[in-house]
Order: sequence, then C-alpha cells, then structure tokens
Amino acid sequence: MFEKIYLKTQGHTDFLNITEEVQDIVSKAQCQEGIIFLFAKGSTCALTTMEWEEGIKKDVKSVLEKIAPEDFDWQHHKKWGDHNGAAHIRSALMGPDLFIPFEKGKLTLGAWQSVVFIDFDEKPREREIEVKIICG
Amino acid sequence: MFEKIYLKTQGHTDFLNITEEVQDIVSKAQCQEGIIFLFAKGSTCALTTMEWEEGIKKDVKSVLEKIAPEDFDWQHHKKWGDHNGAAHIRSALMGPDLFIPFEKGKLTLGAWQSVVFIDFDEKPREREIEVKIICG
Amino acid sequence: MFEKIYLKTQGHTDFLNITEEVQDIVSKAQCQEGIIFLFAKGSTCALTTMEWEEGIKKDVKSVLEKIAPEDFDWQHHKKWGDHNGAAHIRSALMGPDLFIPFEKGKLTLGAWQSVVFIDFDEKPREREIEVKIICG
Repeated sequence: MFEKIYLKTQGHTDFLNITEEVQDIVSKAQCQEGIIFLFAKGSTCALTTMEWEEGIKKDVKSVLEKIAPEDFDWQHHKKWGDHNGAAHIRSALMGPDLFIPFEKGKLTLGAWQSVVFIDFDEKPREREIEVKIICG
Repeated sequence: MFEKIYLKTQGHTDFLNITEEVQDIVSKAQCQEGIIFLFAKGSTCALTTMEWEEGIKKDVKSVLEKIAPEDFDWQHHKKWGDHNGAAHIRSALMGPDLFIPFEKGKLTLGAWQSVVFIDFDEKPREREIEVKIICG
Repeated sequence: MFEKIYLKTQGHTDFLNITEEVQDIVSKAQCQEGIIFLFAKGSTCALTTMEWEEGIKKDVKSVLEKIAPEDFDWQHHKKWGDHNGAAHIRSALMGPDLFIPFEKGKLTLGAWQSVVFIDFDEKPREREIEVKIICG
C-alpha cells in the first residue's frame, strides 16, 4: 500500500510532528501488524523520532547550528548561488528514511517518542513523504 | 513475526552489543532469507552498527560529548526538571531504527560490524526493542 | 530477491554515487512497486542520500572532519595500530542502512537526491552492499 503525506514547511530547521498522520495511515491499513516505511523526498530535510517538546526542538536546532551553521560560506553556495549549504549537510547526516513497526493497529513508539519531519531549507517548501506499509 | 529484545541499561551513553540476540532471533525464523527490522522504543536511545572495541566506544562517546555535552544548560531541562537534554539530542541525531538483511540464516554483517544499542539517558533504564522479520 | 553492489573505494571520506546501480536493480525486479533495502557491509562506511554536487561533498567532508578529525589520537588506534578511528566514529553516527521506495519501476527520490555510499577508511577498499527488494 502506497500513500503520501504532504507538508507545508517554513525551513530553517522547521520541526513538524507527523505522528498523527502516520498513525492515521496505519489505522486504515488492511492489516493490524506490520511496518510503516517513511521516506522524505528531498535533499534538504530529514526524518527522525524525538520527544515533542519546545526545549528539545531548540536544543537540536542549536546543536545542528554548531555542527553546520546556516550563515557560513559553504562550498555549495558557489554552485547555484543559493544559500542552503547547511541544509544539505544536516540532511545527509540525519538521513531521509525511517520505519516504525505497528502491532494491533498502533505504532510501537515509546511513550514520549514522536515521528518528526525536519525541513532545513532556507525558504518555505511544499514537501512529500513517501509512505509504504508492509503487512506481516 | 514479532519479537522483543529486553535490555537493562546504565545510561550516560551505555553501549550494549545485541548482535547475538539479533542472530538468535534470525536463527529461529521460519525463513533462511529476509530482513530483520529493529526499532528502539524511546527518545533517549539509538541503534547503530560499529566494531565492538573498547577504544571505539570511548571515541564515539567523546565525540557525542563534544557535539551535545551532558553537563550543559539545555532548554529541555526547564520543562521537566530532569537533566537529560543531551540524551534527547543524541537520540534524534542517530535515530531509532536499523535493519539488517540475512541470508542462509545469518546476518549479512561485515567481519567487524556489531549491532549496538546505545542508551544516552541519565539513569539506568529497562528498554525494549521491537523486532520484526520479513521473509523473502 | 537478493543482489549485491560491489564498489572499489579510495577511503578518506570517498563519496560514490550509486543511484544508477540501485535504479538498475529496481528496473530488473519482478515488481513495479515496493521498497529496495541497502545495507553497507563494514564498520567504516555509510549510506545516505544527498545532492550530487562537488561543493556539498567538500562541505559534508569538512563538517565530519570537524566532528571527528582523521588526524587525532583516537583511543581505537591503541588497539590495532591502525589509524582509522575517525572512520569508525563517522560510520557509527551515519549508519549502514538505507531504504528507498519505488513506484512504476522508479525510485521515489527527490529531484536532486542521489543515493550515496561513503567510505571513511584510511585506504582503498573493495566494498559490498547487500541489496534486497520487497515487492508490494
């Protein structure tokens, strides 16, 4: 089963909690047990899990800013004249793919674990996440 | 097929080699070929692969300590009064999910590649890894 | 369906674009829809997606060099007398596994998103990526 999740994002390490969207797709699946696979289409974004708390979002953002600051003269900026080198680096490090098992129709997340899409790009974007369920 | 791996951890970037537990589950599977999917339930831990060597564990820990030090006044600490902000950041960066293919009943790991669970939290925890095998 | 991708690499954070190899395997699959799973065999390499552009490669390499410099006295070097401690750290942080969905026989990558293998080791290597397709 293929589905898509569409998102409107603000960029600059914009965190979006997509746990409900993902659980909704699982709830409509033909099976009660399996794995849901999520793939972020794009090279300036990522998928992960984290507690959905304002402080953590600020903390993760500040650490990524230290690792790969937005306001830096990245080599990539010479190519297209854009200014999203940091976004590419953060995306490559964090990765685009995430799977979550489900049992009895529910995602097997920890109590404080949300499914989170992060957009690192320098401007608002419309994003697409590919979603696939494998039953069994 | 659903299984669980239960772990008792010490926190503070505690590395646990779970290669044997994972291979044992594969050995009992109904099929000789497929993929085993592992998902770490929790937002202050992670799964990865690495050589199981004391020096590497110290090195990975020291790098994570540089990226997101435990003893720092993270924004997250204001929320619950706990002190595990670094654990949340490290977990979000490294990710909770890992899959490994198997052939002829054996994990297709490299010669020096172990399956490793890392607990970043600030205290001992009982942890659960969701395990799912897909044959084929 | 099991396949393997064989690579000759140069090490020192050598980036290899394997998008074509991966698409070729998908094109020969028995199904038009499913997921392709890639697993990098080894503890000094990683798989991710990124834009295939010379500047980004330099930028990602420079950030990894800042996080875990090659020329540093890592604890791991005491064990075997080799000098690839940074490679182990980078590999553990980035991870060995990557999946990509495909529809109508095509990988569902973003327009600028390539599938990239990175070899962090200190010398040329022959590498193997385990590849598995699940239809559905």
